[in-house]
Amino acid sequence: MTFFRSRWVEQPEHVTELEPSALPEGFRAAGVAAGLKPKGLDVGVLTSDEPATVSAARFTSNARVGAPVMVSRAARLHGLRAAVANSGGSNVGDGQRGYETAVAMQARTAELLGVDPSEVGVASTGAIGHELPRGPVLGGVAAACQALDADADAFSHAILTSDAGPKRCALDVELEAGTVRLAAQAKGAGMISPRFATMFCFVETDAQLDAGTLDLLVGVCVKRSFDRISVDGQLSTSDTVFAFANGASGVRVEPETPDELRLGNALDALLRQLALEMVRDGEGARRVGRVVVRGSAEAVEPVARAVADSPLVKAALHGADPNFGRILQAAGQAYPPGTPFVVDLDLQGKRVVSAGDAVGWDDARLAELEDAVSDDEVEIELTIPGEGGETEVFFSDLSEAYASFNSKYVKGQG
Amino acid sequence: MTFFRSRWVEQPEHVTELEPSALPEGFRAAGVAAGLKPKGLDVGVLTSDEPATVSAARFTSNARVGAPVMVSRAARLHGLRAAVANSGGSNVGDGQRGYETAVAMQARTAELLGVDPSEVGVASTGAIGHELPRGPVLGGVAAACQALDADADAFSHAILTSDAGPKRCALDVELEAGTVRLAAQAKGAGMISPRFATMFCFVETDAQLDAGTLDLLVGVCVKRSFDRISVDGQLSTSDTVFAFANGASGVRVEPETPDELRLGNALDALLRQLALEMVRDGEGARRVGRVVVRGSAEAVEPVARAVADSPLVKAALHGADPNFGRILQAAGQAYPPGTPFVVDLDLQGKRVVSAGDAVGWDDARLAELEDAVSDDEVEIELTIPGEGGETEVFFSDLSEAYASFNSKYVKGQG
Repeated sequence: MTFFRSRWVEQPEHVTELEPSALPEGFRAAGVAAGLKPKGLDVGVLTSDEPATVSAARFTSNARVGAPVMVSRAARLHGLRAAVANSGGSNVGDGQRGYETAVAMQARTAELLGVDPSEVGVASTGAIGHELPRGPVLGGVAAACQALDADADAFSHAILTSDAGPKRCALDVELEAGTVRLAAQAKGAGMISPRFATMFCFVETDAQLDAGTLDLLVGVCVKRSFDRISVDGQLSTSDTVFAFANGASGVRVEPETPDELRLGNALDALLRQLALEMVRDGEGARRVGRVVVRGSAEAVEPVARAVADSPLVKAALHGADPNFGRILQAAGQAYPPGTPFVVDLDLQGKRVVSAGDAVGWDDARLAELEDAVSDDEVEIELTIPGEGGETEVFFSDLSEAYASFNSKYVKGQG
Repeated sequence: MTFFRSRWVEQPEHVTELEPSALPEGFRAAGVAAGLKPKGLDVGVLTSDEPATVSAARFTSNARVGAPVMVSRAARLHGLRAAVANSGGSNVGDGQRGYETAVAMQARTAELLGVDPSEVGVASTGAIGHELPRGPVLGGVAAACQALDADADAFSHAILTSDAGPKRCALDVELEAGTVRLAAQAKGAGMISPRFATMFCFVETDAQLDAGTLDLLVGVCVKRSFDRISVDGQLSTSDTVFAFANGASGVRVEPETPDELRLGNALDALLRQLALEMVRDGEGARRVGRVVVRGSAEAVEPVARAVADSPLVKAALHGADPNFGRILQAAGQAYPPGTPFVVDLDLQGKRVVSAGDAVGWDDARLAELEDAVSDDEVEIELTIPGEGGETEVFFSDLSEAYASFNSKYVKGQG
């Protein structure tokens, strides 16, 4: 089955899928088991062998960030050569001890790879407020640096927490100047997981780009992918995207050229599908919703978020209930009180509210709607007053399994 | 058992509980079954016999309001003599037809009570976007106006939707000038219910007050009660509070006197406990949480809301999990990105985070915390940077039963 399985992501014509764990030329990665999780791989290292590698990074906007984000922000974010990551502990809320552990992970990785510490990014995911044991994690770093090879399979497993499986893809991208490779490995069951809450994405390409061009492409594509998803509206302390371009293909992509656009299109499709994989993998999720809001430029964003994050809308999505009343209520909540709020609403392309009032339903129509909202992907289109704005948010449903999974108390995993 | 059963509401010393469905002198009420719901009472009328009655009202701040709220807003809100209410249909999203039904309910009630239509408030609750059948509801109004008596029992049942039972209380309030009676009937399983989402509260007193004094007392007490609760953060299209003071006791309460304060204290305790009853009655709810936030005057409100509305915090509350990491994450999400966010956090009066970092836990300490958060009422105290602000929000937990209840699709109940 193709990686691009959502109807909301079109595979660009100039893109060919490869083995999903393949890496572009000049990149190596590894994942090892260091005992941070009860079982499975939990420490990963990713590096580019090319000294001329450029990079770009994005982090959570949560005011409360973890030690790894603090340490990474202080690194040379446009000139990273490597990233070290672990699952089994987010290293958030452990004070000076946790900060020193993040610095030690960065320093040990740099030493073993022969690069400067400022050229290494750090990313950790797992429980908040507990010690990330320094000895085991540094042992894992050493083992991973010994095990580096041209395949990202183990790396893509080492970053997982509650994910059902690895999320990764490798593509050949045909440019006018030649073919480059583009790959990414991600983790995240939306923003949510049992006692963790984080998304990571690592992106590699062997195209030759200026750091500014890479940063621009990553910035635009992150805004259209990971910034547009919600499982439960909960922003992590540790969200991290690291992207690397090492030029090993010899194919140069200049700013403001058709090739920049072609590479951007490929990155866009890749990150959007990875983002959708996170929503689809939200605990207990059965369906993915997409809410599109058009109208006032100021209001489209809060209205779309209010609909996507409403537990009543999410529960209706789970139950395949064409419940438009909850959509109107959630949208109206995000609107200035007292403002005229007259909307059109389509469910799966079928008009259910026109100029603010319900369209009459007969039994045949209702049966048609019930059938439509039982699809795996359900689209909600809302037109609100005003002009100039349009946005979308992808979201998962709310199920009994979500509540159950997140209320099970595991002693000492606070 | 006393009505004031929450540890967060103290029964004022000058207040005595009466039969909970009693009404103050000069008030009459009734509730009848008009067939709007499959079974049970569904139309209620409440009226004051005193021409000099003054009133105060508060409505939802949702931009999308129902026809009853539109009609009520246009009434003489400081001089209402009566209210008509129904469950089994919220009369929202039914266009001109629904508007005319709300007007007809108001007019028929006024005609039968011999008052002006502008002296009647209207409140409806139930499914959004379906017809509230005019014939049955007007038949119910006529029957209720025939059945008025000095007890609010049937009225307090007629306004319920998914509530486990009626929410009401009647008090004698000793003032310096004499004793007055104060009563209220409310509905609401928080903001949430299966396909409805509304809270109502009707307040009656036989004290003699200026309309301005009543409005002030109601405004302050609503801000400290119904404005401070959340089941799922979902603001209804139909929330309504109507308060009446008819002076039948002959006891005058002057502005800015000790008696105004005494009556205000009684009203405050009454509405806070009713608000807590709504949170406690949220579908599937097992525990009530209270989050208190102290610090920056601008930040306390969004931080408290972010904690109270986090499905991860709510699920932890359900599971009796002393999960402070989720509280830090939710609070940080509501804070300006990049701002230093160093907090103290107490769970049930026990310090768990000091200056932003976890306090070391040993097994005995953990056992103590686990035990503490398994109480029916759990308190979270958060001290954030800055000064001058303090607020609280009461919230219910998130359970499998909430998700199940709200995802069960009932054909045609959109």
